[in-house]
Amino acid sequence: MTRLLPGIHAPADVRALPEAELPRLCEELREEIISVCGRVGGHLGASLGAVELIVALHRVFHSPQDAILFDVGHQAYAHKLLTGRRERMGTLRQAGGVAPFLDPRESPHDALLAGHACTAVSAALGMLEGRRVLGQKGHVVAVVGDGALTGGLTFEGLNNAGGSTLPLVVVLNDNQMSISANVGAIPALLRTREARDFFEGLGFTYVGPVAGHELGPMMAALREARASSRPVVVHAMTQKGRGFPPAEEDTQTRGHAMGPYEWRDGKLVRSRKGQRTFSEAFSAALDEAMARDPRVVVVTPAMLEGSALVGLKLRYPSRVYDVGIAEQHAVTFCAGLAAAGARPVCAIYSTFLQRAFDQVIHDVCLPRLPVVFAVDRAGLVGADGATHQGAYDLSSLRAVPGLALMAPVVGEDLPPMLATALQSSGPSLIRFPRGTLPPLTPELHPGVAPLQGARWLLKAESPRLALVTLGPLGLNALAAARAETGWSVLDARYVSPLDAPALLEAAACGHVLVVEEGTTHGGLGSAVLELYAANGRSPRVRLLGMPDTFVPHGDARVQRAELGLDVEGLRRAGRELLGAGR
Amino acid sequence: MTRLLPGIHAPADVRALPEAELPRLCEELREEIISVCGRVGGHLGASLGAVELIVALHRVFHSPQDAILFDVGHQAYAHKLLTGRRERMGTLRQAGGVAPFLDPRESPHDALLAGHACTAVSAALGMLEGRRVLGQKGHVVAVVGDGALTGGLTFEGLNNAGGSTLPLVVVLNDNQMSISANVGAIPALLRTREARDFFEGLGFTYVGPVAGHELGPMMAALREARASSRPVVVHAMTQKGRGFPPAEEDTQTRGHAMGPYEWRDGKLVRSRKGQRTFSEAFSAALDEAMARDPRVVVVTPAMLEGSALVGLKLRYPSRVYDVGIAEQHAVTFCAGLAAAGARPVCAIYSTFLQRAFDQVIHDVCLPRLPVVFAVDRAGLVGADGATHQGAYDLSSLRAVPGLALMAPVVGEDLPPMLATALQSSGPSLIRFPRGTLPPLTPELHPGVAPLQGARWLLKAESPRLALVTLGPLGLNALAAARAETGWSVLDARYVSPLDAPALLEAAACGHVLVVEEGTTHGGLGSAVLELYAANGRSPRVRLLGMPDTFVPHGDARVQRAELGLDVEGLRRAGRELLGAGR
Repeated sequence: MTRLLPGIHAPADVRALPEAELPRLCEELREEIISVCGRVGGHLGASLGAVELIVALHRVFHSPQDAILFDVGHQAYAHKLLTGRRERMGTLRQAGGVAPFLDPRESPHDALLAGHACTAVSAALGMLEGRRVLGQKGHVVAVVGDGALTGGLTFEGLNNAGGSTLPLVVVLNDNQMSISANVGAIPALLRTREARDFFEGLGFTYVGPVAGHELGPMMAALREARASSRPVVVHAMTQKGRGFPPAEEDTQTRGHAMGPYEWRDGKLVRSRKGQRTFSEAFSAALDEAMARDPRVVVVTPAMLEGSALVGLKLRYPSRVYDVGIAEQHAVTFCAGLAAAGARPVCAIYSTFLQRAFDQVIHDVCLPRLPVVFAVDRAGLVGADGATHQGAYDLSSLRAVPGLALMAPVVGEDLPPMLATALQSSGPSLIRFPRGTLPPLTPELHPGVAPLQGARWLLKAESPRLALVTLGPLGLNALAAARAETGWSVLDARYVSPLDAPALLEAAACGHVLVVEEGTTHGGLGSAVLELYAANGRSPRVRLLGMPDTFVPHGDARVQRAELGLDVEGLRRAGRELLGAGR
Repeated sequence: MTRLLPGIHAPADVRALPEAELPRLCEELREEIISVCGRVGGHLGASLGAVELIVALHRVFHSPQDAILFDVGHQAYAHKLLTGRRERMGTLRQAGGVAPFLDPRESPHDALLAGHACTAVSAALGMLEGRRVLGQKGHVVAVVGDGALTGGLTFEGLNNAGGSTLPLVVVLNDNQMSISANVGAIPALLRTREARDFFEGLGFTYVGPVAGHELGPMMAALREARASSRPVVVHAMTQKGRGFPPAEEDTQTRGHAMGPYEWRDGKLVRSRKGQRTFSEAFSAALDEAMARDPRVVVVTPAMLEGSALVGLKLRYPSRVYDVGIAEQHAVTFCAGLAAAGARPVCAIYSTFLQRAFDQVIHDVCLPRLPVVFAVDRAGLVGADGATHQGAYDLSSLRAVPGLALMAPVVGEDLPPMLATALQSSGPSLIRFPRGTLPPLTPELHPGVAPLQGARWLLKAESPRLALVTLGPLGLNALAAARAETGWSVLDARYVSPLDAPALLEAAACGHVLVVEEGTTHGGLGSAVLELYAANGRSPRVRLLGMPDTFVPHGDARVQRAELGLDVEGLRRAGRELLGAGR
């Protein structure tokens, strides 16, 4: 039988198919998703669960005249496959390849760019209002996972949409999971008949629950929604990982995101690298701290797996809190824990901490509460791309009074760093990157808590240049300095408070190269420049870090080299600086 | 009859009163609140509405063993009066005086420091969990206004609290208003019988609605809540501004916040200064822009009054959106509006924009949508104090790619600046301070859109020092420079993109004093230092701005002088810099 998918280049082709062919189309989509993710990895689980939903959407609504906004968009691989990107899907999440989420610059059928959850309802309502103001027609549909109902932004949007008279269509793709199991009262509510009351109370017409893998009922429900003259929610029940036994059987995440695999004779073959990550090293340090001190508790916004906290949750079920996709609450909840005398550690990705910027300032730092922020995925994140880069934690938080900012070079730095943070009477932040741990280097002495100030990794006898670094880039700097003469390396270790004496000593040689994995607009480098200006020093300084553009998806190691943050890049930059200084 | 209030020094004194005396206590509290606000101004309306509620709370719960967390705390003047601060209440909101909101450092009975709404439920849940972990006893009560139910953080907290088994007590002080009228579906829901279903759906036991000004029923309801072994909400119906006719009659805000007044012969006498504010000037510029271009719309998170948008809302009812206390939604909603082709202006205070940091980055700037942020209260805010200072907008947003950051010196700069932003194909931000407009100075040529780059306010013939400034501080710099010889003044106007040629020209004289009303850690000054480093320039630079501490409440003009940002301070700093440079 001829495959249908190669003949589908746009939603109109989906609408042109005889209805009887649609189940076969869904089957092909599933095969393709499983095959692509097997080759290149990706967000398998959610996408497998949304296949029929997406086919039904493209039958009932006419994209792009009708705008379909997928919350996050990691559920939308079927949408990518149906909108002209099938042949390029093998490049998914790779440099120059198909985007990890959705992007209007990639396809006119992608109405929303989003890698963070909970934005679709608000953006869709705005789009509908914008069309009204401009006198334009067309439906606007927000496709939202049930996990997004734990996030406040979704509620702000629902409150405003439900209070308006515009016919916003919200499709609730209810697979009963966030990334891992859902938490809180609302997901539980969705399992009951009160779901109808709940959405009607919010001002929506409620259609459902609908069997989300049955095309007929799904299309009927969406047609009903399309005909509505007021806000309407379609509640579709789906199964994450549907149709791929290894995902269906994984009760923890239903195959949320998977690296490449082979699927042979009913068996999943994965190439586990087995190298330990920074997340795992931090989790191990946390485990020790929790064993030592019963006051230590951990809070994560839906990132138990990503932050390597699954084991801790099993060991300390009542001291590890997954609060759902609710970054603001995660931080303010920590403030309450700390105010009561507990020692909360908030494990959060750099990009998601942006969601709680005000809570860090207003709820934690202003009252000077001893919350420890464990900021994972700080710096380049690789395949997840522009939405997830950890570029702004240092520049945005450095100015917040009393917040100590630290970064480890190697995994061995983490235990004393965490202990230092937990001993402090005020708030602290420890940032570390995505990825595997570098080996411990003899030059590195992790030290014991309480840590203080910077650390010389290499001191030249007749120094000509000082590399001032933060985090694991210190190892690249060390390799660069060893290959040159008269180069010293200072691991700043703290961005706040700065180690003024060490940094002034570094300035004495006349040339300072500051290296960090974060924006150079306001980060460590700027802090160093401020210090030198305040002390009337004027060495030649060059800042290296992340650029003044959004870094797209790609291989972080390659991107690091492109940004000149690898050993060769640092040598080049150092030589240039020395040359310019002559 | 002897007054009761002078004998009340702590909640125990309230509990010791015969129940029959409580109405008289409430009457005295109201008189005191009206009298204090008349003398020094303050958050009158909400505090008058919560008098009985607060007396009932202190009868039923035993603070501080039981923790009472007031959301925002502007409703809690009665609480201040009952907890030992009565004699100092005349110093409210003034330098060194009683705090504008609540603060644990001011009283052990203030369990939560908060000037931003929506934090109480999350913090209270954290506190209750913390006590559980540490084996401590005591009830935890969150007192939340209905306005906070439009904010996502409250929902994140309710979802987690309702899903837990801890006996959190939430008291919903429902006065049917945010700062102005509530918006959206949820406030409407609270007016119906479905309120019970709604909170029960969220996992709470529901007690109410209770007549919030009837002490007997209020105490009975709170006792019922105190006895609960699971999460419980007490829904109290109150009247904002209760007992003060001018507030009761003000249907817009019920006397939310008022400056000093006299209350004579049943008449309110207020000293209106009548001077035009930056907010009003921006609103006027917006009015013109909306008249010119039907695509221009305005979005505010519950700040119609504060942002001087009431008149615009009346003129353009369907193009001015008050979305409630929902900063994240306000920004993402703007993203949707812009994506549809409208030209949204998001009017928001600097301190509240912190709530939407991620939405600015991820929803607006990453897709390069033409949203204009009109950032009011940037810099020192005076009486509202530490929670409301606009210190971090520049330092946190300067690093975001493609976001233009601008600031006017005088009100006349606003129309061309707004026009420039509205003509741009990408996102822009215009920041301006709280306060009245300075007079137009001949040296200032506002120019016509599109504006570009910096503007020399004064160019010395033989320059020895350049003052690089942002915003109205440029006028102080101008006055300082006129009193000295060889001092130039460059109004940076843009923080991003920087005007490199002008700033390099400024550097040529060898001494640069950068002056801004924002943190000096990562703001304009750092941007200037980065530029000089990248170009190998090393003039002597000094940065002046807001300090590395949280600035408390006080008179902004006095604080500006204390920070050395007045004319004398700038002269002093400039001379010091010249002296150090010799």
